[in-house]
Amino acid sequence: MGNHSPEFQIFLNDLPGNDFNTIFRSLPRFQGKLTEQMGSGYGPCFFSGVPGSFYGRLFATKSLHFVHSSYSLQWLSQVPEGIENNKSNIYMASTSPPSVLQAYYEQFRRDFSLFLKCRSEELVTGGRMVLTILGRKSEDPSSKECCYIWELLAMVLNEMVSEGLIEEKKLDSFNIPQYTPSPAEIKSEVEIEGSFGIDRLEISKVHWNAYDNEFCPSNAFKDGGYNVAQCMRAVAEPLLLSHFGVAIIDEVFCRYRKILADKMSKERTEFINVTVAMTKKKL
Amino acid sequence: MGNHSPEFQIFLNDLPGNDFNTIFRSLPRFQGKLTEQMGSGYGPCFFSGVPGSFYGRLFATKSLHFVHSSYSLQWLSQVPEGIENNKSNIYMASTSPPSVLQAYYEQFRRDFSLFLKCRSEELVTGGRMVLTILGRKSEDPSSKECCYIWELLAMVLNEMVSEGLIEEKKLDSFNIPQYTPSPAEIKSEVEIEGSFGIDRLEISKVHWNAYDNEFCPSNAFKDGGYNVAQCMRAVAEPLLLSHFGVAIIDEVFCRYRKILADKMSKERTEFINVTVAMTKKKL
Repeated sequence: MGNHSPEFQIFLNDLPGNDFNTIFRSLPRFQGKLTEQMGSGYGPCFFSGVPGSFYGRLFATKSLHFVHSSYSLQWLSQVPEGIENNKSNIYMASTSPPSVLQAYYEQFRRDFSLFLKCRSEELVTGGRMVLTILGRKSEDPSSKECCYIWELLAMVLNEMVSEGLIEEKKLDSFNIPQYTPSPAEIKSEVEIEGSFGIDRLEISKVHWNAYDNEFCPSNAFKDGGYNVAQCMRAVAEPLLLSHFGVAIIDEVFCRYRKILADKMSKERTEFINVTVAMTKKKL
Repeated sequence: MGNHSPEFQIFLNDLPGNDFNTIFRSLPRFQGKLTEQMGSGYGPCFFSGVPGSFYGRLFATKSLHFVHSSYSLQWLSQVPEGIENNKSNIYMASTSPPSVLQAYYEQFRRDFSLFLKCRSEELVTGGRMVLTILGRKSEDPSSKECCYIWELLAMVLNEMVSEGLIEEKKLDSFNIPQYTPSPAEIKSEVEIEGSFGIDRLEISKVHWNAYDNEFCPSNAFKDGGYNVAQCMRAVAEPLLLSHFGVAIIDEVFCRYRKILADKMSKERTEFINVTVAMTKKKL
């Protein structure tokens, strides 16, 4: 319609411990590529970094038009309380007591509901939000499709306990602060919280080894066990390190890599993503 | 009047090379102290970091109510061009050729004018700005009150050239990208750029050794030469390092400390600050 491009003000949020310096130093190159792709009539785009937990207010009231979160909301604000009986597991598993599954679910409900409330205060009426969350299709929270990747890591840790390399009570008290919700659980929380109407709710799948597809035929990425172990190391190392100390880390991921390679050669191993698009209601 | 506190959205700007991580990690403690001082009815305050040069647009159009800059605008966007004849000086000095003083002034005018233009686009009408700039009282840009601190550093570098520790041509090509304006020069640029009306324009003084006052009687801070050399090292080391290399740095600041201590014991050594408060005009 011949209108000029709007100006974009983009806020990049992460916890204060994130390395914002590296993000900021990469922005000039990113902006160069953006201009190349979109043409010079696009933008301008102004970037800023916002340190803080998204389970709390981060922005001024009604100051945002659009919120996007990718692969973050499966992280809980804390390990659920009252799961001391999840002994040799490190996440929800088929052998977890029902009270553990319940505690994980309740923590997810509290956290996700708080996220929705905070963002609804920050968005303008009619503002939109697209969230992609690591999740599951099944209604069983201990379903293999979301828990298996952690069960394999638990296997490694239990093996090292049996060899005396890790203290048993250390393992018993270790749990991952994550919850991988189903589409129905997400829908239910959005409806209970009440600020948003859901426009779309979809599931997508991605192979554990993201390089295992036709777009990346290079042999350099064919070692799926290595790729997935490295990816999970980026995710889990800080948690393992602060709980078990640095000494065991290399050994853990060396063993994990082997188990992953073995399982991936025999089974279909995929992550399930749940993506939800919603609009802030006029209340 | 019984009104609630407004929400504050605060943008902290610096060049992309600044260490934003440390700033961000210090914010929770800062916010705790702020709440303690201001009471719980104050705010909330939302903080974000904005990487980029303020000699360019950083924020969306008419999105700011207040701009503050402290001790930054004396930095030019670059070393002025055409000052190859400022040989053994490293800044404007009484022995600098008039063309050097002119080139420095022109660079300041271009940079400061661009700063005013960018901020005027970002501020709402009636928005205000308070700038504190390292400057001078005198209308002579090579006045001792602003140039002496660099002249003493130049003395050190020239001494090291004469001892063969620094290459002469290296020193000849080194100049500090700074300009310390007078109140009249600031006033003139604000008027020429035209977007702002000046509300107040004031001068203040601070001793080179900021600890040299009645509020800080501790002996730990009595070594003025050390304090000022350390302070100037924080400012100048990155510039010296990239031009002369790392090998000479310790020696430079060791000698600088001695010269500073000597001069400070004999002379009144003060920095001049120019502070200007202005309001964006309705155009």
